[in-house]
Formats: sequence, structure tokens, C-alpha cells
Amino acid sequence: MPPDEALRQAPLLAQLSDQQLERLRAKAQIVQVQAGQWLFTQNDPAEFFYFVHSGQIRLFRLSAEGEEKIIELIGAGQTFAEALMFMGTGRYPVCAAALVPTELVAIDATDFTAMLRESPETCFALLGSLSQRLHALIAEIDNLALHSASVRFARWLIAELPIDTDELTLAWPKSTLASRLTIKPETWSRITRRLSEQQVIAVHGQVIRVLDRKALQQLGDSGDPALIPARQARKTG
Amino acid sequence: MPPDEALRQAPLLAQLSDQQLERLRAKAQIVQVQAGQWLFTQNDPAEFFYFVHSGQIRLFRLSAEGEEKIIELIGAGQTFAEALMFMGTGRYPVCAAALVPTELVAIDATDFTAMLRESPETCFALLGSLSQRLHALIAEIDNLALHSASVRFARWLIAELPIDTDELTLAWPKSTLASRLTIKPETWSRITRRLSEQQVIAVHGQVIRVLDRKALQQLGDSGDPALIPARQARKTG
Repeated sequence: MPPDEALRQAPLLAQLSDQQLERLRAKAQIVQVQAGQWLFTQNDPAEFFYFVHSGQIRLFRLSAEGEEKIIELIGAGQTFAEALMFMGTGRYPVCAAALVPTELVAIDATDFTAMLRESPETCFALLGSLSQRLHALIAEIDNLALHSASVRFARWLIAELPIDTDELTLAWPKSTLASRLTIKPETWSRITRRLSEQQVIAVHGQVIRVLDRKALQQLGDSGDPALIPARQARKTG
Repeated sequence: MPPDEALRQAPLLAQLSDQQLERLRAKAQIVQVQAGQWLFTQNDPAEFFYFVHSGQIRLFRLSAEGEEKIIELIGAGQTFAEALMFMGTGRYPVCAAALVPTELVAIDATDFTAMLRESPETCFALLGSLSQRLHALIAEIDNLALHSASVRFARWLIAELPIDTDELTLAWPKSTLASRLTIKPETWSRITRRLSEQQVIAVHGQVIRVLDRKALQQLGDSGDPALIPARQARKTG
């Protein structure tokens, strides 16, 4: 059975007391599945929700023709089928199979909800933990979107820059240029601010001066988050 | 005051009954802030959490030197400062200011938690709603990561492809190539499967045949999610 720290990776288990985790363990089972092996199938009664300790699980639906439609991949540290428990639907709406050898903890849904009914404080702690995780994920998506917009911006700037100088005078309003790059004007502002801080460019009114052409080129080439650093998601409530 | 459908965009409000939303409205206030105007400052008592109806809010911390460190941007349909309420911390840990003219609903945190204490069913519904939203966001991040890996794959394949033929015979094991592109072997498999389904490539053992060079080129050029379609995040529990 994974140690408490491992279980507490999941937002739904993060805020449980030691006693509550102990109670959960007493009713929980370790499940090992081989690569390709099924864990449950669509419409099976949903008596458990699962924590993935190691490996990866594929959730999918089967069409009438037997074709698989992947719904979600669940990695280590994540739980799945827990929303079902709260919604009282009673049956798994998808199939689950292992992509690689996978170890899971099957958590008794009935006992888990009983534990929550006994303690509104625990419900609140879980609501807080899930809310925080939501904020962190939204920030991460925002960050990924910013990176991809930055790559477009860098490529555009390299393409527009005259050969004989490092200065580009913008012939159009920022909002028009932003729209051509399919980014929002505020994203344009964030990108130019970020690149100015990093001394890659300097902006003076309608003039963009490229200070570090190599860094700009790297950003334009990159498929990886490189130049534009990840803004850390913090506990903001 | 925004209509019920607008408020229900937020996972925390999505599952409230009409009566509960009515009660929330009775205690809620509409707040309008201009671009640049502050909503609250670090250490203010946290009596409300907020729903953004329109506009955008910047959450930030101030360093001792007065420098701003952006923590998070909150857009329309999102709530913020709700985790605080569940954690009972009592004070905002950040400052909040509007980036653009913004309309918010200030929701009475004391009354909201009282409403939840009266109804474990409501707590459960909110836990379910937040869990579902978490799954959807994780799927979205996974998808964005898959897209960026696909762009790297497409560029690599274009670069490696001999000029006189559309076939590339892999000289290295998949795992080695995947590692050179900093993607996981299972991601390599997902990308080649997806591109095969889209008839962009065909894979036979160690041979990749390019069926649609233009589509591959577009994918390699793209900063936008284009060729690799978004896998829909569904209600999976």
C-alpha cells in the first residue's frame, strides 16, 4: 500500500487526517493490472473509486461497432471515478484498462462518502483542496497558451524584421497585429513585457528593437516551454 | 445580476438548486471595477468570494520593494478566493485588480458555507462538479502537451525524410527517437496512431510512409492546435 505522502498527491485525499487515511486504508484494496488488462467495463456497478499509484490507465467508451473512443488518460497520483461517487450515478460510464503495468488503490466509495457525511469540516477541506488544484491547472493552461502565442509572436517578428537593422516600426495598431497572430491584445502586452524583462526586445511606442536575435530565434523554433518562463501557480484561493 | 446560466458556468455554483441560487443572490452584491482599479489588497478580511461575470482580474503579490508578482489571471465564468472560504484562513493572501473594466458578483462567504453545512448533498454535488472540472482540465493540458509533441514530431519527420522518396526507415528504436524529441514512448505511439487515422502517415514496422506531406508541413509550422484534434473531455467521473 502506498505511503500517506503518495496518497496525498490526489487533491481528494490531500486534506484527510491521519486517522481518516487509516480508515480508508482499512477498507481499500491494492489492485495490479498488466498492460492491456481491463479494470472495469462500462455499466459495471461503481463500488470503488481509484487512486493510481504507478502506471497509467486509459478510460474509453466502446461504440456499437466495438471501436474505442479514448476519453481520458489517468497517470500516477491521480484519482478517477470519484465524481461518480458524489453524483450517486452508481455505474461506471466508461471502460478502464491499463496502458502499462499499473498499481492502483481501490477505495470503498460507500465508506468514503459515509466518512464525509460525518464531517462537514472534511467536506470543506476537500472543496478547498479541489478548488486550489483547479486554480493551479487553469494557470498552467494559461501558461501553455501564452507559450504558444509567444512562439507565434517570435516567428512573426523574425519574419517582419528588416535585414539591415534590429528595429521594426509597427505599421498597424497593436490590436490589429495581435488579431493577425490570433492572440488577444492583452496577451500581446504580456508577451512584449515578458520579452522586455528578459532583454530579448525593447519596445518604445511603435518601435520594437530586437536586443537578442538568437534568443528570439530559439523561441520561434521551440516546441518546448523555454524562453517564456512558467508562471508559478500558487495557493491563491 | 447575471442570469442563473451565467453563474452556473462556475463549477462551484453549477450544481446549486434554483432555491440555493436565489438565496445566494439575496446576499450577493454586484461590483464594477475599472481597468487598473483594485478590488482588495493583501491581508484584507476575506468576507466574500467572487464570480467574474465579464472582464478579467489580476491576482498578485507585492514584494517589500513594491514590485508586483502576478499569481493568476481570472476570466469570465471563473470564481476566485473560494478556496480561502473552505480553508477558513480569513484574509486574502493576494491583491486583486481589474485588467479591463470588470463586473463581478461578490458572494457572502459566511452564508455560502452555512448553506453547505445544512446540506451534505450540496457538498457532494459541489465535490462532484469540481472533480469533473479537474478531469476536464487535466485532459486539456494533456492535449496541449500532445499537440506540442506532435509539432516536434512533424518537424523531425520532415527534416529526416529523404528528398526523393516519401518513406523513412527508422534507424533507431522508437524509444530512442522518442527520447531525442523529448516525448514519452507512449506519446510517440499516440501521435503516430492519430496521424495514421488522419491518413497523414502510414506506419509499417520500422517504415514511416508520408501520405500527405502538406498536412505534415502545416502541423510542423503550426503554433495553433490544428491537425491533431482536441480529444473531448467528457464526464468520466
